[in-house]
Amino acid sequence: MGLDLNSDLGEGFGAWSMGDDAAMLDIVTSANIACGFHAGDPAIMRRTCSLAVEKGVRIGAHIGYRDLAGFGRRALAVAPAELRDETLYQLGALDGFARAAGDRVRYVKPHGALYHAAAAQPALADAVLAAMREYDPALALLGPAGTHLQESAALTGIRYVSEGFADRAYTATGGLAPRDTPGAVLDSDTALAQAVTLAETGTARIAGGTVTVSPDSICVHGDTPDAVRMAQRIRTALEDAGIAVASFT
Amino acid sequence: MGLDLNSDLGEGFGAWSMGDDAAMLDIVTSANIACGFHAGDPAIMRRTCSLAVEKGVRIGAHIGYRDLAGFGRRALAVAPAELRDETLYQLGALDGFARAAGDRVRYVKPHGALYHAAAAQPALADAVLAAMREYDPALALLGPAGTHLQESAALTGIRYVSEGFADRAYTATGGLAPRDTPGAVLDSDTALAQAVTLAETGTARIAGGTVTVSPDSICVHGDTPDAVRMAQRIRTALEDAGIAVASFT
Amino acid sequence: MGLDLNSDLGEGFGAWSMGDDAAMLDIVTSANIACGFHAGDPAIMRRTCSLAVEKGVRIGAHIGYRDLAGFGRRALAVAPAELRDETLYQLGALDGFARAAGDRVRYVKPHGALYHAAAAQPALADAVLAAMREYDPALALLGPAGTHLQESAALTGIRYVSEGFADRAYTATGGLAPRDTPGAVLDSDTALAQAVTLAETGTARIAGGTVTVSPDSICVHGDTPDAVRMAQRIRTALEDAGIAVASFT
Amino acid sequence: MGLDLNSDLGEGFGAWSMGDDAAMLDIVTSANIACGFHAGDPAIMRRTCSLAVEKGVRIGAHIGYRDLAGFGRRALAVAPAELRDETLYQLGALDGFARAAGDRVRYVKPHGALYHAAAAQPALADAVLAAMREYDPALALLGPAGTHLQESAALTGIRYVSEGFADRAYTATGGLAPRDTPGAVLDSDTALAQAVTLAETGTARIAGGTVTVSPDSICVHGDTPDAVRMAQRIRTALEDAGIAVASFT
Repeated sequence: MGLDLNSDLGEGFGAWSMGDDAAMLDIVTSANIACGFHAGDPAIMRRTCSLAVEKGVRIGAHIGYRDLAGFGRRALAVAPAELRDETLYQLGALDGFARAAGDRVRYVKPHGALYHAAAAQPALADAVLAAMREYDPALALLGPAGTHLQESAALTGIRYVSEGFADRAYTATGGLAPRDTPGAVLDSDTALAQAVTLAETGTARIAGGTVTVSPDSICVHGDTPDAVRMAQRIRTALEDAGIAVASFT
Repeated sequence: MGLDLNSDLGEGFGAWSMGDDAAMLDIVTSANIACGFHAGDPAIMRRTCSLAVEKGVRIGAHIGYRDLAGFGRRALAVAPAELRDETLYQLGALDGFARAAGDRVRYVKPHGALYHAAAAQPALADAVLAAMREYDPALALLGPAGTHLQESAALTGIRYVSEGFADRAYTATGGLAPRDTPGAVLDSDTALAQAVTLAETGTARIAGGTVTVSPDSICVHGDTPDAVRMAQRIRTALEDAGIAVASFT
Repeated sequence: MGLDLNSDLGEGFGAWSMGDDAAMLDIVTSANIACGFHAGDPAIMRRTCSLAVEKGVRIGAHIGYRDLAGFGRRALAVAPAELRDETLYQLGALDGFARAAGDRVRYVKPHGALYHAAAAQPALADAVLAAMREYDPALALLGPAGTHLQESAALTGIRYVSEGFADRAYTATGGLAPRDTPGAVLDSDTALAQAVTLAETGTARIAGGTVTVSPDSICVHGDTPDAVRMAQRIRTALEDAGIAVASFT
Repeated sequence: MGLDLNSDLGEGFGAWSMGDDAAMLDIVTSANIACGFHAGDPAIMRRTCSLAVEKGVRIGAHIGYRDLAGFGRRALAVAPAELRDETLYQLGALDGFARAAGDRVRYVKPHGALYHAAAAQPALADAVLAAMREYDPALALLGPAGTHLQESAALTGIRYVSEGFADRAYTATGGLAPRDTPGAVLDSDTALAQAVTLAETGTARIAGGTVTVSPDSICVHGDTPDAVRMAQRIRTALEDAGIAVASFT
């Protein structure tokens, strides 16, 4: 069985760039492409979709809060009905570019503060799923395991793809240790080892044992040159361990 | 043969409203719905699409410049490639709501300063048409007669629907008299008469004769209570004259 | 002693208008003018400041979250340092227009979700006060009584002006009953009576007695024609009761 | 007599950065700081003003069109009255940060498409000057020599500071050769030589002779690592030639 690698791409805006999308698209199998709400603009969306299709990478709608100034990282009290509308808007907008490039949007992944809010609040999870179902029930949802997003996807009949992180420590319940906790962010070698263990056993090491995570995809970062190198090392380590790196669709 | 009535709708933004969309949707047959660039937001787009479908009104993408502060009325030097991308973005975004409401976007109409720029500059006209063709070649383009938009549509194989104005004076070449010219904006009774003449003969009265306009659609304004009354009077006058008011699709 | 009347003004944006500012400026003594983050734009800011100065109304900076799409009504997790910067930005921007009109910004009032957040979270209250102090220590802060905003103002040495509401029911602790509670929004006659009682006794009637509110200013709404009439009725009722309606500065 | 070096700084936005402002502030004597319309945000404005004051660099308001998506580089048909308002808004907003840092805004420089529009159109030039005069008549205006901006400044009684470019070829009339003309952009060594000649003689070499430019300031670019090195080389070359590099205020 294979493992997917996903990364956040197309996160520039106008004259501002972020990350080396072309390099990352040679490494990952799923591209979470910003849709213009937290980052991205029509020109970047077209370019990123075209590159993704050229390189055989699947296109996902990286939906976010309407907050360019905060890059979608700040919690924003969007009502569920409005979140449903904003999800549909972003999905449709990106899909035009995906189709122009010869493919279509295959999945949705919430970004930043919305990722956490929709995982924690059933009404928000339901809103995202409702928009996905009305747009295309064949879409998959990529997100954290064991959250309201996963429950809501199950109820809606939408395929759920859970993701793990190579470079973040896990807690005993399978969640991520908060970023400001000591040891929460792993060094490169530990991250490489965790990627392989996640792929081979579906578990992560925690203090005094292991915890089951069973990710279908590993999220790799792409916004710095070091991140590109690290993403490449993770892919190579997985392949060296005999793991087939392949899109989940 | 019938005549279409189109109006600009869904032009609120967030807490701000504009016009009485529900009243206008009882009068017109084609709704030019703002897509979030010059006006409109996801909640308004859903609501307007739903109402339009309920009332049997066709949905058009009213694409505009990315300029909420200027309502898309200010000329903005967007490069053709970028205009193509922004057209595709707006088209896809609106189409999600049109499809959720049970129909789809049937046509495109440029708004405000973009309407004039795309009519006058071939490269911009081509950009709009290119986005339309790559999204859905069955889309129609609604715009002024005898302009680069019409030429570009013909070259692209996209159906062109030309619109006339009841309340604006025409020049000898079939264009609109500039708004700040004396007599450029007609009073209500003259406008009613012009609507009927346009529908019956395809011509408008000018100093010393008539000019051929041959509109497929009449654009009626909807942003004031008076405008709603005037739109209703135009529809009634057309029907009283035996003109079938019907969508062009 | 007198009582101030304040209202939220200058809340249009571009082509969109809200409320009848000219009518309200004949009634109130303090104008909370939007600064472009939740509403307002440079043209509206100039016009509103000019009208305010003409009519002898004091200018306050109605600072808000950077969220035009949500009109600043949605909670947004802005970090304290950023809130301080955004407060200073809005203050400076409005003050240019106030000075061009011949006066200056006299006070600050947080808007919408920021009003509630800064009242409840000391770090946010401190951020607002820090920006005010560095801009002009003679500024006053207008907000709800008995909150962190008031505490923070006291610690910073900034004058605090507490406001009451004519049309909202109070709780036993002097706070407002949540808007969705039965009886939370008072009818016109009760609101008129409460305005006069607040002015004469500093108290509001609650179930089984009264609660001390002691407002220095009454907030009146201005965004509908009815609101303008109600604001006028409140002012007349206060004056009929012998209360001097006057700005707090 | 000395020569000023100015550069465009503070041009990031939210999570996106541009250029190495700290490095450039060790080289230039005047900082054109973006005010949030084409680039910049409150946090960046505070940081850039603080750094500028620390390093003894003068603060200028780099006013631009309200067009983050286009970085202010696209012509936008803003009416003169609105440009005056937008200039005043940006000036006031930046001045708050300049004053918090212990100095104040000393000059204004239009950015991008506004730079060209205000140089070419008297009504726009007058609008910028009108806002400057009402805000602070002691402000200087930094811009191209021999344009409507300079004329309007003279009429308004505002000090005009004309700038030259080291790396751009001049025409026989003292204007810049259009960027897409062959030879319009000079190589590094020619640019260094032109900087020194401009400083020593006030002239630039053109085909068949020289043209008088007489700049008070040289504009150096800062948005790439190479640009920083080039800016440093220009400063060193000027100082080696005995030119005092110093702010014009």
